Amino acid sequence: MHTIDRRGASARYADAVIHNGVIYLVEVPSTTTGDIAQQTQEVLASLARQLEALGSDRSRILMATIYLTDLADCDAMNAVWEAWLPPGSAPARACVKVAGLVQPGWRIEIALTAASA
Amino acid sequence: MHTIDRRGASARYADAVIHNGVIYLVEVPSTTTGDIAQQTQEVLASLARQLEALGSDRSRILMATIYLTDLADCDAMNAVWEAWLPPGSAPARACVKVAGLVQPGWRIEIALTAASA
Amino acid sequence: MHTIDRRGASARYADAVIHNGVIYLVEVPSTTTGDIAQQTQEVLASLARQLEALGSDRSRILMATIYLTDLADCDAMNAVWEAWLPPGSAPARACVKVAGLVQPGWRIEIALTAASA
Repeated sequence: MHTIDRRGASARYADAVIHNGVIYLVEVPSTTTGDIAQQTQEVLASLARQLEALGSDRSRILMATIYLTDLADCDAMNAVWEAWLPPGSAPARACVKVAGLVQPGWRIEIALTAASA
Repeated sequence: MHTIDRRGASARYADAVIHNGVIYLVEVPSTTTGDIAQQTQEVLASLARQLEALGSDRSRILMATIYLTDLADCDAMNAVWEAWLPPGSAPARACVKVAGLVQPGWRIEIALTAASA
Repeated sequence: MHTIDRRGASARYADAVIHNGVIYLVEVPSTTTGDIAQQTQEVLASLARQLEALGSDRSRILMATIYLTDLADCDAMNAVWEAWLPPGSAPARACVKVAGLVQPGWRIEIALTAASA
């Protein structure tokens, strides 16, 4: 049985969970007013901090699911995403438009599966 | 090569799949008429039964993806969710509003990744 | 630390990522004009090719997430899906209607987690 390491766990969710060499994490923007470029940067900065706190980093992402609220945001999101990823380290990636995110004003939510250190 | 253990497999999907210490499972409500509190309880009760049948339990969930059809259901869903989770065992969690679920009347669908026993 | 094997990686995403015995991959249709049966066949044919190129195959899928743009497509998608899956090898499966996929005309996107060879 592998241990389960939870970080930043509230009653509702954990910031990150680590099990058997794999990290699971989900992030939303820190603001509800920024445009998609800003909100994408907020989400990715938070994900990078969490990965690094676990001894991993953005080069070790295995799978990403990107939820957008507006497909017109795709290009600007992709520009931030591609600049953020180290060359040669892109994960498998699903990207869909949802009908809404929990907080009005959020334009993006990203779920990641990553390899631990 | 790790073995793959499938439970309750139809031609379309399995109730649960276990591989390399990780359980994959997805659940929908057992009714199409209940309100979100009832449907959330239905989904979580089924997930708990499946986890326990595999020797795991609700304290070993790694990642949850919650699909809702109405964001007005969030608060009631969260109340049931938080009461169901043992303290300190919340998983990473994505929660989005989709444009629809397969069965009209379903208000929630939950996909889980959990640690096996 | 397990190695990470990325196949077909662009700046934006990889066709497949393999880590710790698990394969992550996402596929979209190769055309934007086909009906749901054709687009489902396109997606599944591509997934099968990718799995086989990695020494795995369609009998080793653990979890599938199917994103549709129209719930009226469910039955035809399921018919193709069930004919494609070898008997007894269905994965856990989430299936939801999203508000849109990145390319206009796409009717389906499928994300898979599979066991490597």
